[in-house]
Amino acid sequence: MIPIDDSPIVRDGKSLILAQDHGLEHGPVDFTDVPEKLDPSKTFETATHPAVTAIAVQKGIAEGYYPSYDDDVNLLLKLNGTSNLWMGEPNSAVNCSVEYAAEIGADAVGFTVYGGSNHEVEMCEEFRTIQENARAHGLPVAMWSYPRGQGLKNDTKPSTIAYATRLGLELGADLTKVKYPGSTEAMAHAVKCAGDMKVVMSGGSKITDHEFCSLVEAAIDAGAQGLAVGRNVWQREDPTELLDALEQIVFEDATADTALNP
Amino acid sequence: MIPIDDSPIVRDGKSLILAQDHGLEHGPVDFTDVPEKLDPSKTFETATHPAVTAIAVQKGIAEGYYPSYDDDVNLLLKLNGTSNLWMGEPNSAVNCSVEYAAEIGADAVGFTVYGGSNHEVEMCEEFRTIQENARAHGLPVAMWSYPRGQGLKNDTKPSTIAYATRLGLELGADLTKVKYPGSTEAMAHAVKCAGDMKVVMSGGSKITDHEFCSLVEAAIDAGAQGLAVGRNVWQREDPTELLDALEQIVFEDATADTALNP
Amino acid sequence: MIPIDDSPIVRDGKSLILAQDHGLEHGPVDFTDVPEKLDPSKTFETATHPAVTAIAVQKGIAEGYYPSYDDDVNLLLKLNGTSNLWMGEPNSAVNCSVEYAAEIGADAVGFTVYGGSNHEVEMCEEFRTIQENARAHGLPVAMWSYPRGQGLKNDTKPSTIAYATRLGLELGADLTKVKYPGSTEAMAHAVKCAGDMKVVMSGGSKITDHEFCSLVEAAIDAGAQGLAVGRNVWQREDPTELLDALEQIVFEDATADTALNP
Amino acid sequence: MIPIDDSPIVRDGKSLILAQDHGLEHGPVDFTDVPEKLDPSKTFETATHPAVTAIAVQKGIAEGYYPSYDDDVNLLLKLNGTSNLWMGEPNSAVNCSVEYAAEIGADAVGFTVYGGSNHEVEMCEEFRTIQENARAHGLPVAMWSYPRGQGLKNDTKPSTIAYATRLGLELGADLTKVKYPGSTEAMAHAVKCAGDMKVVMSGGSKITDHEFCSLVEAAIDAGAQGLAVGRNVWQREDPTELLDALEQIVFEDATADTALNP
Amino acid sequence: MIPIDDSPIVRDGKSLILAQDHGLEHGPVDFTDVPEKLDPSKTFETATHPAVTAIAVQKGIAEGYYPSYDDDVNLLLKLNGTSNLWMGEPNSAVNCSVEYAAEIGADAVGFTVYGGSNHEVEMCEEFRTIQENARAHGLPVAMWSYPRGQGLKNDTKPSTIAYATRLGLELGADLTKVKYPGSTEAMAHAVKCAGDMKVVMSGGSKITDHEFCSLVEAAIDAGAQGLAVGRNVWQREDPTELLDALEQIVFEDATADTALNP
Repeated sequence: MIPIDDSPIVRDGKSLILAQDHGLEHGPVDFTDVPEKLDPSKTFETATHPAVTAIAVQKGIAEGYYPSYDDDVNLLLKLNGTSNLWMGEPNSAVNCSVEYAAEIGADAVGFTVYGGSNHEVEMCEEFRTIQENARAHGLPVAMWSYPRGQGLKNDTKPSTIAYATRLGLELGADLTKVKYPGSTEAMAHAVKCAGDMKVVMSGGSKITDHEFCSLVEAAIDAGAQGLAVGRNVWQREDPTELLDALEQIVFEDATADTALNP
Repeated sequence: MIPIDDSPIVRDGKSLILAQDHGLEHGPVDFTDVPEKLDPSKTFETATHPAVTAIAVQKGIAEGYYPSYDDDVNLLLKLNGTSNLWMGEPNSAVNCSVEYAAEIGADAVGFTVYGGSNHEVEMCEEFRTIQENARAHGLPVAMWSYPRGQGLKNDTKPSTIAYATRLGLELGADLTKVKYPGSTEAMAHAVKCAGDMKVVMSGGSKITDHEFCSLVEAAIDAGAQGLAVGRNVWQREDPTELLDALEQIVFEDATADTALNP
Repeated sequence: MIPIDDSPIVRDGKSLILAQDHGLEHGPVDFTDVPEKLDPSKTFETATHPAVTAIAVQKGIAEGYYPSYDDDVNLLLKLNGTSNLWMGEPNSAVNCSVEYAAEIGADAVGFTVYGGSNHEVEMCEEFRTIQENARAHGLPVAMWSYPRGQGLKNDTKPSTIAYATRLGLELGADLTKVKYPGSTEAMAHAVKCAGDMKVVMSGGSKITDHEFCSLVEAAIDAGAQGLAVGRNVWQREDPTELLDALEQIVFEDATADTALNP
Repeated sequence: MIPIDDSPIVRDGKSLILAQDHGLEHGPVDFTDVPEKLDPSKTFETATHPAVTAIAVQKGIAEGYYPSYDDDVNLLLKLNGTSNLWMGEPNSAVNCSVEYAAEIGADAVGFTVYGGSNHEVEMCEEFRTIQENARAHGLPVAMWSYPRGQGLKNDTKPSTIAYATRLGLELGADLTKVKYPGSTEAMAHAVKCAGDMKVVMSGGSKITDHEFCSLVEAAIDAGAQGLAVGRNVWQREDPTELLDALEQIVFEDATADTALNP
Repeated sequence: MIPIDDSPIVRDGKSLILAQDHGLEHGPVDFTDVPEKLDPSKTFETATHPAVTAIAVQKGIAEGYYPSYDDDVNLLLKLNGTSNLWMGEPNSAVNCSVEYAAEIGADAVGFTVYGGSNHEVEMCEEFRTIQENARAHGLPVAMWSYPRGQGLKNDTKPSTIAYATRLGLELGADLTKVKYPGSTEAMAHAVKCAGDMKVVMSGGSKITDHEFCSLVEAAIDAGAQGLAVGRNVWQREDPTELLDALEQIVFEDATADTALNP
């Protein structure tokens, strides 16, 4: 972990990352209700909203669409990822090198580690290479820290999420994305386990505006330094209103109620 | 994905790729009815037809025969492939490096990814290296995206083909070859899932001229940017007439009926 | 093994290493009674005590906190480690390269080898690379020599600990950390098996001041060249008094009684 | 495949390769009746016969004995091979690099591929590296194409041998060695499957002079470009007469009868 | 195999190698009756006896103790080895690179190959790298050729030892160490299988002076070019007398009786 407050993916110490790698991780089924969003341009457009500090996509999308948006959007290139066509013990292919990410113009890189998987050792060693190369290129490193695998029954219980943020800190991430552990107290503990490293909450599947904003409010209250959101934003036809609200909650410490009813 | 309309393997935004790697993938049995085609020169001759924008072969064939045709044929070197003597979970050996493909004079490279196989992670990581090296050599990258393996019962159902084209886009292919998913609607959806990346239909086993041309017409109608065809061309004694028709369907938007009865 | 008496991590031929990689190896649960110690600064502060010749932490903690303490603390960067979320045959991910450790300013590197594990061969080969790179960078190498795995019922019996120190010597460590084998005689034998290489006792889980100091006294009596201690120091709210006592036992040959009742 | 008619291992378009790697592949038992042949000098002497265009041996034999024969014998260094002490799914260790083969003075390199083995993918990828390095050193590449493994009951049936020669062509060998498929027709088909690549018949275990010469006559009639022979030559006390006959059959299109009764 | 008669580890065409890697391979238990020998200096002292042409130890012992003896002892650095804490199919970790061995001042390198093990392919490929790097550094290569593993019931039967020496020759060793196959005839056959490569007998566990000298006499009579001895020398309190005898047997063709009763 090194300080990244000066990075373009951070604003006032916080980050709001708009993620769209669902086409790889889940397949086109996630786009069923919003087929127009299969066009990545739409999500890049959404990422120009001032609330968004970075877009997180895979290599192919980045090299195809980022050139048209590099003035208005910051790129967090997600370096690994895998389809769900494959059903084995959790693992993730490294689809992009740090060198190529830098060439495309990435402002930061992202990497999933499935702590607890039988592939944990292998993934941590891949993370080592990625992290050290990112240091050499001056790129912040975000870890998607998702404990998962044979031995783990419940992947959002407080002790698991606390371990997840600590893994990010110990292994050298600058920002770690974890699922919400169910309560403000548990989230606060997870943030504390991360020391000076930033923790952002992972958005998850789509819920109502109020439910989602309340969750984000709770995470920010707990000390989280932001949010990485995907489906809760781009599965909405026009996410502008929600992003307006999220901007207030994440960067202005507004409550969900105030933010949604200004 | 990067724009490849200026590549020699594309003509007016479309591609017609003549593939002959069946000697590796299926063995000589595919040549039973046309034993003279065991001589790769015959297929290179066929590839001089103006409809064909590239020939796709393996390294050994390319280094042996391409030097005599490099003025008249564009080479898409297929970099991986495996015999069917071996029956394990789908995988494919990387038989040629990008560096050597460039040395031979390839205009593009091709690579199979079996999404859903237990070897998916390994194949995607091999694809990463190939794709990034191809960028460094200025060579377009075609993915043979063929979901297949333990967990997949039906490899041509619409959702699988849609996932297949999306994998090509997300992982950084410039053109993705998929099987026909059974209907124009399904093909149109698969094309939409590919964003700005080109999708070409895979030809499959030999059927009648009219059946095949109708299939191609449907794919082009659905928005596919072309065709990769093997057996339906070279298993015909003289494929000239069929190639004449395909040229009209792919590049001139002709119907199968018009193209076959000019 | 090469002489390391001139290294900053050694003082008068002895070492007292304060280790805190428990956040990775065991998770936040080890901090339950001292949650304030989740902040690594606290342990770096503790490491400024003159008794401590080096702090042992993982990469992420080192790059985040060591820059503020590099004048007052010597860094032994632990290069591998794994969470206990994963339950397979003992193994440990290599989380940091020697090159990067040197860049961060490490004074020495540490590496775990689980002799007896099904991963022993792999870990020893990783150790080879680490050890030889460390030689090239002039960094002493400490081995955490912890025989463990399918075939080992009791990992602290005298013959196992004697084998453990010998492994350190044979494989090229400069200092080897082992568990206490239960008696002064057994420890003396283990030290003898190490030839001229330094052996330090591993601290283990928290016990009373007197119990712990007596154990350290026994190890020093047996010829051990020091101590690597974690929980017995940082799980105490204020470990100053204990460190004062340990300093006398380790460096001044005091007894536990004298050291604790000066 | 590239043209190798100018290579020293080819004479008038044909090759007669004398192979002696049996000490590795089968062990000393193959020498039981001719113990004096355990001395590799004896086989190098035999290889000075004008019929022999190259000797095929492993690295250790080459570096020990070839320096005394490099004026009179051409060296085809066999780069992989394995003992039969080991009984697993067919595989073969890469015992020599192309770089070192070139340093020793090899005129060509040889490599076994067990198509159909569970190690086929791995062996083909090793072959890729070997083949491309050989191109860089200007060395022809011979493939020992021996389909074998779990799924293959009969390794000399016509379709298997036809597939075997095609594998050589597709993967980039310049000459492929296969077993005799039982009939002139089957051999002719296998040769046709190889396109312009050379095919040589593998000699197999020892039979009578007339039987062996008739087999070679049949293979040459079928279009094979020569022979790789081991035991049928060096297991004879004085193979001169047989080599005289083979020279006529292979290079002069003599019949077995004429060649053996001049 | 290349000629190594000019190497410092050879004297008059013969070698007597004093080996002490038992601390790694068997653990401290081998030192139970001679605990003072746990100090490697003692064995280096023994190695200054004029009968000894080289000492064979692992990296850690070499770097710690060889600097004090490099004027009087030749170093054969054993590059792989494994503890017996681990019980799997025979394998051995590569604990030292050739480059580092050369840096330490090694006069030769040693490497174990377990022919017949499921790890045979992997070990042979490791041997390839070692052997070729050793050539580049001008260092002779000794193979510990010990067929062993699932498929091998008896590892000292004549055919196995004959295969073992042949493996050394074929794979490129300059000297191969094998167990005694039970009779002078069997040893003579094994030596013959090795061609011009040197064969040395492995000493094995401790027996009486006369028994051991008789065994060595038999091996030398059989044509072996020397001996690699460990426990039969260093497990004796003062091995001088035995070394005096061995010197006569190995280098002067004395009988055991004459050598022991001068």
